[in-house]
Amino acid sequence: MRQSFDETTDPSFGARHLPLLRERLAEQGLDGFLVPHEDEHQNEYLPEANDRLAWLTGFTGSAGAAVVLADRAAVFADGRYTVQMRAQVDAGQFEILGLEGKGVSAYLVKAPQGAVIGFDPRLHSPDSLAALRKAAAAAGATLKPVEANPLDAAWGADRPAQPQAPVVPHEDLYSGESHASKRARIGAAIAAAGADAAVLTAPSSIAWLFNVRGGDVIRSPLPLGQAIVKADGSAELFLDPAKVTNQLPAWLGDDVVLKPSDALDAALDALADHKVLIDPAQSSAWYFDRLEAAGATIVRAMDPCAIPRAAKNPVEIEGSRQAHIRDGAALSRFLHWVGTTAQETLPDEREVAQTLERFREETGALKDLSFDTIAGAGPNGALPHYKPVGDKIRRIEKGSLLLVDGGGQYLDGTTDVTRTMAIGEPTDEQRRMFTLVLKSHIAMAVIRFPVGTSGHQLDAIARQPMWMAGLDYDHGTGHGVGSYLGVHEGPQRIAKAVNSQPLLTGMILSNEPGYYREGHWGIRIETLQVVTPPEPIPGGERPMHGFEQLTFAPHDRRLIEVSMLTPDERVYVDAYHAETLAKVGPLLDGEALDWLKGQCAPL
Amino acid sequence: MRQSFDETTDPSFGARHLPLLRERLAEQGLDGFLVPHEDEHQNEYLPEANDRLAWLTGFTGSAGAAVVLADRAAVFADGRYTVQMRAQVDAGQFEILGLEGKGVSAYLVKAPQGAVIGFDPRLHSPDSLAALRKAAAAAGATLKPVEANPLDAAWGADRPAQPQAPVVPHEDLYSGESHASKRARIGAAIAAAGADAAVLTAPSSIAWLFNVRGGDVIRSPLPLGQAIVKADGSAELFLDPAKVTNQLPAWLGDDVVLKPSDALDAALDALADHKVLIDPAQSSAWYFDRLEAAGATIVRAMDPCAIPRAAKNPVEIEGSRQAHIRDGAALSRFLHWVGTTAQETLPDEREVAQTLERFREETGALKDLSFDTIAGAGPNGALPHYKPVGDKIRRIEKGSLLLVDGGGQYLDGTTDVTRTMAIGEPTDEQRRMFTLVLKSHIAMAVIRFPVGTSGHQLDAIARQPMWMAGLDYDHGTGHGVGSYLGVHEGPQRIAKAVNSQPLLTGMILSNEPGYYREGHWGIRIETLQVVTPPEPIPGGERPMHGFEQLTFAPHDRRLIEVSMLTPDERVYVDAYHAETLAKVGPLLDGEALDWLKGQCAPL
Repeated sequence: MRQSFDETTDPSFGARHLPLLRERLAEQGLDGFLVPHEDEHQNEYLPEANDRLAWLTGFTGSAGAAVVLADRAAVFADGRYTVQMRAQVDAGQFEILGLEGKGVSAYLVKAPQGAVIGFDPRLHSPDSLAALRKAAAAAGATLKPVEANPLDAAWGADRPAQPQAPVVPHEDLYSGESHASKRARIGAAIAAAGADAAVLTAPSSIAWLFNVRGGDVIRSPLPLGQAIVKADGSAELFLDPAKVTNQLPAWLGDDVVLKPSDALDAALDALADHKVLIDPAQSSAWYFDRLEAAGATIVRAMDPCAIPRAAKNPVEIEGSRQAHIRDGAALSRFLHWVGTTAQETLPDEREVAQTLERFREETGALKDLSFDTIAGAGPNGALPHYKPVGDKIRRIEKGSLLLVDGGGQYLDGTTDVTRTMAIGEPTDEQRRMFTLVLKSHIAMAVIRFPVGTSGHQLDAIARQPMWMAGLDYDHGTGHGVGSYLGVHEGPQRIAKAVNSQPLLTGMILSNEPGYYREGHWGIRIETLQVVTPPEPIPGGERPMHGFEQLTFAPHDRRLIEVSMLTPDERVYVDAYHAETLAKVGPLLDGEALDWLKGQCAPL
Repeated sequence: MRQSFDETTDPSFGARHLPLLRERLAEQGLDGFLVPHEDEHQNEYLPEANDRLAWLTGFTGSAGAAVVLADRAAVFADGRYTVQMRAQVDAGQFEILGLEGKGVSAYLVKAPQGAVIGFDPRLHSPDSLAALRKAAAAAGATLKPVEANPLDAAWGADRPAQPQAPVVPHEDLYSGESHASKRARIGAAIAAAGADAAVLTAPSSIAWLFNVRGGDVIRSPLPLGQAIVKADGSAELFLDPAKVTNQLPAWLGDDVVLKPSDALDAALDALADHKVLIDPAQSSAWYFDRLEAAGATIVRAMDPCAIPRAAKNPVEIEGSRQAHIRDGAALSRFLHWVGTTAQETLPDEREVAQTLERFREETGALKDLSFDTIAGAGPNGALPHYKPVGDKIRRIEKGSLLLVDGGGQYLDGTTDVTRTMAIGEPTDEQRRMFTLVLKSHIAMAVIRFPVGTSGHQLDAIARQPMWMAGLDYDHGTGHGVGSYLGVHEGPQRIAKAVNSQPLLTGMILSNEPGYYREGHWGIRIETLQVVTPPEPIPGGERPMHGFEQLTFAPHDRRLIEVSMLTPDERVYVDAYHAETLAKVGPLLDGEALDWLKGQCAPL
């Protein structure tokens, strides 16, 4: 099994590790220290060696921060993690606070006058530091960059080694464009931005640009490394030599010079007198300081790989279609199991997640899960970011719901899908709520929209059916998804928060409205969909984008209250199920196929 | 008649006035000059004496700017005015450019190296100046504030006098809150913002805070003036003494000191050592410079009257309801005339606008129109901001549509309503497009939304039916409306552009989707609606805002293709018409009432 169901931290971490950190702070003459969740590569999912926040506090969420002062400390995360933080963190050691509003900054304002608070400039982007510096200044405190991270020193010999997963070629068959071609157009973009070179530090940009994949970051085939790309398309790629596989030098060719990670500092210094593009939202402050000290002129701009990576080419889109059909067959086998065997055996969430993993593994193509499976039975399903571990694991129960959110990493694409199933006979209330979420999901699936529309403009389209019923969900409607890369990928996003990136042809996004009845059960319906090119509509005047569904797996028809659907919505569900049967059916046989036929019959 | 149908400028203005301005620039040693549309009070609608842009260029739109350099000049406006600019401005004198993107700034980048470009600091907000200064600097030019405006000097004796409309009390019966109560809470807001005093320069804030109305700005009962409000709620109000009516001193009481306009400079100087709140989006740079020179500490914050003014109290809302019923009766009489007499006589747009004005006048309560009536016959209706003047005036024609957008200023409220009517037998295409616009309009009328939702989040709710048909409209969906104040009032707005102001209970907004077939006809359906308090929905969990309709007047049922409506939409139209008959019917009689009954019968 790829997935573990054990707790990796416990609340004793705070009492054990906080004094160790404070000792090191005292040695370095610091009155405090900032501990962001992000690591040197601004990753969301981290290698174990870089999950400093988890080591210090016990909190394992995918976003957060801690502030340690001499006599107080606090840990911060957003609303989706409030319950988890309370369970994982010793409240005697850390105040448990929200990241919303001005979270960390508001806390820094309470720092003692004259305090010197350390931070590791390799872990903070300049954008995030600016607000923190201002807050510290308002308190009469100062933020001081450290050379050596005192937390790493405190962690010491217990700290796991940096990951050294092999970096391998990712064939053009999957990427749809040679890295020479990508480098040529990224080089041109660098020149167009008025720069001579760009420093890339995002693992997903390294992976995309050079058509390579690694395994340094859990659940994502990302290689940790850096690159310097010149306006002529030539590049230097910095990787730990232990990760360089035999095929790599030939794959990269003569225009890409492979260098060991410790050659990076000198290479940055060599950019003196260059105009260097670097992304202040993506790359840490350390790079900016180093480049400035070297005498480079910094051009602050978005990582030039971000949009080409997000807007998939036809080969990537076709790959994603194939990956989703394969994954949809595995998921359909799993749903058949939930709908039949599991209704009798009432397994626990661990067995649920393991069974889904087994079906995915049996495709023979699974490279990894795309994230740890969320299998939420009953009340656990009402926690949008629940993960079954330790003694929180529940058995599924008759009369309740099971929410399963998972995905796979395949060479040809990354999947992410949520289905919610009735265990036993669903109640009228469960059917009503499921159907409302389905209406929200359909509204986003069928929307057409003009060129230039951003995700925040579309968000209310999905929420409308929920709003009209006096309901809402406290998470975004859709996130970007990579092509055999991260399952959360920007810059596009569909959410209430403003996101100025227009949705472009080829961008893959999730569509995942939900409803969560705290203490009882949760409902989420998620498919991935890709933005289609602007196309004329008969009788219309302006070409409109739309979405093509990528995910195909049946919805639990026992949860659909047909009388609540409009005729168009009913047509949509029937067409979606017919397409599911046509695409996924050929990969099933026997009872599973019969079951799928029943599920995909018209409502 | 209140409305004029004559051109007030002509394209010869440029050739006549530009040399006069350039002479003055030369005298003042300036190489150029910035001419914004906005005046000293950052008004959208201007007194004639302050419409410097119209005098210089001939362009009379409600937003725009000009840049005059030694050997070139340009005039700028947004897309809705492109056609009008080309008609009104001599393209031999001015390049005609778009305000979109970086409009004026992009032009300034072309200024000659070393050029000194003047600007009148009384006409530009600091927010708008910042971008212009940056653009000038990029060109190696500098922006220099002038003491005396060279354009005013060039305009000379021909410039109309400043308006001196009497300033009169606005009774609590209409305002719903005494000015003493308003001053007390605005004073508290000033203190809460960390300031001792606020400088108010927006005429609408002066009018709202002191419960006074004037007539200095065409179509809006606004008094031009300024005020300094202290944290204790006491205030100084600066008005031209010629405008001060006999009742005013007693109305204002002892805590408001009336001062002549020319006492303002000394009063600002007296704020030395004070913390002074002033709105950089609302008040011109001159105030900031003066306050800084005086030694005041500036607190940059939103005008503290802006949100209390926008979120109407129950008395203002009830006033608006009454004003709308009265106005709806006048409009219904007019629609009856369009539906009967005018179908035979086929009058021109001037007569259409005059007839509507006459019905409004006959209410006996009309203080002014709330803007010049847009009566657009056929192709003129396809110009969203068309105003019938001069030789552009058309007769209505059988087989085409008539779009009429107008409103009235009444003591108890401001109205703004658009109806589109068929002249002769409508075509299938006209019926289809009208019904699509109606579907968009209904979607926004019935939407429920959670606390904290902003207008840009709702905008797509109205556009969805148009988008699904391959259509869109190039203007916002809704603007804020004042209470016997400006017909365009912020900070709330429903549009594609991001507007971070959440919609609050009591805010009045228009709901006006449209469709424009260039060269043929235009369709717009507009009502005003007020945000209702968050209220529980049966079966729901979160209280939701919604909209209450204020405007009541029938839609042209001949243009509604009933088969395109959902059952819910049809119920909405029937209920809206029934409510229109119940509210407006009692104010009509005879043929008009019979006609209204027919219009308001179920579809």
